[in-house]
Amino acid sequence: MSETLDLTIELIRRESVTPEDAGCMDLVIERLTPLGFRAEWLNFGDTKNIWLRRGEAVPLFVFLGHTDVVPPGPLEDWSSPPFEPEIRDGRLYGRGAADMKSSVAAMTTALQRFVVRHPDHKGSIAVLLTSDEEGSAHDGVVKVVDVLTSRGTAIDWCLVGEPSSFDLLGDVIRVGRRGSLCGVLRVLGVQGHVAYPHKADNPIHRFAPALHELTTEVWDEGNEFFPPTSFQVSNIRAGTGADNVIPGRLEMSFNFRFSTELTVDDIQRRVEAILDRHGLRYELSWRLSGAPFLTRESELVEATRDAIARITGRSTRPDTGGGTSDGRFIAPTGAQVVELGPLNGSIHKIDEHVDIADIDALSAIYELILDNLLAKS
Amino acid sequence: MSETLDLTIELIRRESVTPEDAGCMDLVIERLTPLGFRAEWLNFGDTKNIWLRRGEAVPLFVFLGHTDVVPPGPLEDWSSPPFEPEIRDGRLYGRGAADMKSSVAAMTTALQRFVVRHPDHKGSIAVLLTSDEEGSAHDGVVKVVDVLTSRGTAIDWCLVGEPSSFDLLGDVIRVGRRGSLCGVLRVLGVQGHVAYPHKADNPIHRFAPALHELTTEVWDEGNEFFPPTSFQVSNIRAGTGADNVIPGRLEMSFNFRFSTELTVDDIQRRVEAILDRHGLRYELSWRLSGAPFLTRESELVEATRDAIARITGRSTRPDTGGGTSDGRFIAPTGAQVVELGPLNGSIHKIDEHVDIADIDALSAIYELILDNLLAKS
Repeated sequence: MSETLDLTIELIRRESVTPEDAGCMDLVIERLTPLGFRAEWLNFGDTKNIWLRRGEAVPLFVFLGHTDVVPPGPLEDWSSPPFEPEIRDGRLYGRGAADMKSSVAAMTTALQRFVVRHPDHKGSIAVLLTSDEEGSAHDGVVKVVDVLTSRGTAIDWCLVGEPSSFDLLGDVIRVGRRGSLCGVLRVLGVQGHVAYPHKADNPIHRFAPALHELTTEVWDEGNEFFPPTSFQVSNIRAGTGADNVIPGRLEMSFNFRFSTELTVDDIQRRVEAILDRHGLRYELSWRLSGAPFLTRESELVEATRDAIARITGRSTRPDTGGGTSDGRFIAPTGAQVVELGPLNGSIHKIDEHVDIADIDALSAIYELILDNLLAKS
Repeated sequence: MSETLDLTIELIRRESVTPEDAGCMDLVIERLTPLGFRAEWLNFGDTKNIWLRRGEAVPLFVFLGHTDVVPPGPLEDWSSPPFEPEIRDGRLYGRGAADMKSSVAAMTTALQRFVVRHPDHKGSIAVLLTSDEEGSAHDGVVKVVDVLTSRGTAIDWCLVGEPSSFDLLGDVIRVGRRGSLCGVLRVLGVQGHVAYPHKADNPIHRFAPALHELTTEVWDEGNEFFPPTSFQVSNIRAGTGADNVIPGRLEMSFNFRFSTELTVDDIQRRVEAILDRHGLRYELSWRLSGAPFLTRESELVEATRDAIARITGRSTRPDTGGGTSDGRFIAPTGAQVVELGPLNGSIHKIDEHVDIADIDALSAIYELILDNLLAKS
C-alpha cells in the first residue's frame, strides 16, 4: 500500500463532518513538522485552521485544503460505511475520498518527498487546512487570510486541492471562479379578497412581467475564460395558504454566477432598472459571497500544466466553471490560484470514491509542481 | 327598543362561531311555530339546519339565512366585546351584527307581522337557516337542497339576507353571483445547484412567461349583469429555502370569478392552452365552488325593488358582484334568488356593526316584499 493511499484511509476514518476536523490535521502535522514545517493553529469559533510553514523567504507557495466533509446522508444507501474506507475494484470508497482527503494526503506526501530531495528549496512553502469549507466558511480561510494580511504575509502561488478533474485525472484545472451574488427581493402589494381584486394589489400579478424579463435577460456573453453570467431564482413565495386571499407581498431569493465582464454594481443597477421600469414597490437586499477571479497564464498555471503532461501525458484544460471554493478568499490578495484535484463525479454523493491509481499520480503531480517552481537548478 | 333590535341583540349574544349555532335557531323557532310554521331539523355532521314552513301550497317563498359568524379575531382590538352587543351613536356593535344576525331577526319579525295581517296568504312561506355558511358549507344549504329536491319541493322565490347594501340600506341588491373556480397547478422542473443551471430545469424560469400571460389575459368583457371575469393567483411557492438550490417544482393556486359569458370548460381549456403553448410539464387540478347564476327581471326582483323604494325612497341597483353565498345552491334548482341585507362595510372585521335604524327598515322592507308577492288582494 502506498503511503498516500494509507494516509487517505487514515483521514477518511476520522469522521470530520463539517465543521469538525476530528484529528485529521494532527496527521498532517506529525508528518510535516519533523521536516521543518512550523505549525500554527489559527482557530476561530468551532473551526480549526492550521498554518504549516517551512521557511520565511519569498516567493511563498501554499497548498490549500480542507479536512471537513459533507454529511454522508442515509447510511443504509452506502455500499460500505462512509467512514470505514473500503477498496473495491481499484477504487477507494468513503466520505471525503474525492473531496478532498486524497488531495490532502497527496499534498502531504508530495511535500515529504520534495523536501527530502530539496531541503534547501527556493522561497518557502506552506500548507493551509481548514475544517470549515463545506459549511458556512465564516471562520475558515477568510479569517486566516485576514491574519496573514495583517502580518504582511503575501501568498504568491496557491494550489487548491479541490476535485477539478472530470473524466481523467488532470483533464481540467480551475484557474478562476465566477462571482456569486445573492439577492432577496420583497415585492409589496395590498392584501385583499379574491372576489374584490380592484380593492387589492396582487404582487404576484404585478411582478410577473418583471420576473419574465429577469429570467430572459442576457446579462453578458461571458469571455474567453468565463461562461455567460447566469441568473437563477432559488426561492419564490407569496400567499397566505387560503384560496380566497390575494397576498400582500411576494418574496424571492436569487443568485447570480457572474463573469469578469460584470461588476457587482453593474448587476445591481440592471436588476433595479428592471424592477423600476415595471413600477414595482419593493425592498431589495444583496449579499456578495465571492467576487470573480482569474489566474491568467502564469508560472503557476504553466508549472501545473507541465506537471500534468509529464505524469499523465495529458493536455489540461483551464476552466472557471463550478461552484465556489476557498480560492475566492486567496485570489483577492493578488496570489495566483489554481485548483487541481481528483475526479469530481462522486463528490457530495452516496458511495463517494477515488481511483487508487489517481491518488499516487496526484501526489506525483503535486511534487513535480513544487519541482517546477521551487527546486534550485 | 324594537322587537327586531331586541332579537338581533339576543342572537349576537349567542357565540355561534361557525359551524356553531349556539341556540340561535331556537329563538326563531319559538317565535314562528306559534304562527303555524312547522319546524324540521335537517342536521348533517356538526352543522345545524332548520327548515320552518307554513303551508304546503305553491308558490313557495323562502327566506334564507345563516346563524354562524366568522371568528372575532383578537378580542383586545374590539372597542366592546364581540359577543356582548353594545349600542353606541345609533349603531349596534357585535360579531354578526351585519352578517347576518340583523337580517335573521328582520326576517323573523317581518314574518310575525305579515302572518298576523295575512293568516290566509297565497302559497306558502319557509325559513331556511344554516350554521355552516361561513365555514366549509359542506353540510349546510347544499345538503338541505338535496333533501328538498328528493321530496319534490321546489322553491319559487328565495330572499337571501346577506348584507348587500353599500352606502345606504337597499342601494344594492344582488340578483346573481359570479362563478368561482379554483385551480392548483404544479409545474415540474429538475432540481439542481445554482452553479450548474444547465444540469437543472428551473420551473420558476420556465413558468415566468406563462404566468405573465395568465395574469394579463382578458378572459371576457363581462356583460350587462356581470363584471369581466377575473383571474387571481392566491398562492405561489417554489424553492427549498437554500440560496444555492434550483427548485424541482413550483406550486400555485388560483381562482377565477367568472361571468355567465364563460363556462367552466371554456376556462379550463384556455388555461391549459396557455400552459401547453409554453411547453410546460405540469399537473393541474380544478375545484368548482359555484357556477354563476343570474335572476333577471322577475316578480321577486320587482317586489324587492318596489319595497325598497317605498320604505327608503331609494332606487336600488341590481348587482352580481361580491363573494359567494348560499344563493349559489338555491339558484340551480330554478328558483328566483335575490339577496338583500344591511351595509357590508364592516363585515368580517373588528367592530362589526349595523345602524339601528336600518334594522327596523330592513324588517319593514322584508314585510313589504311578502305583501307584494303573497298578500291576497
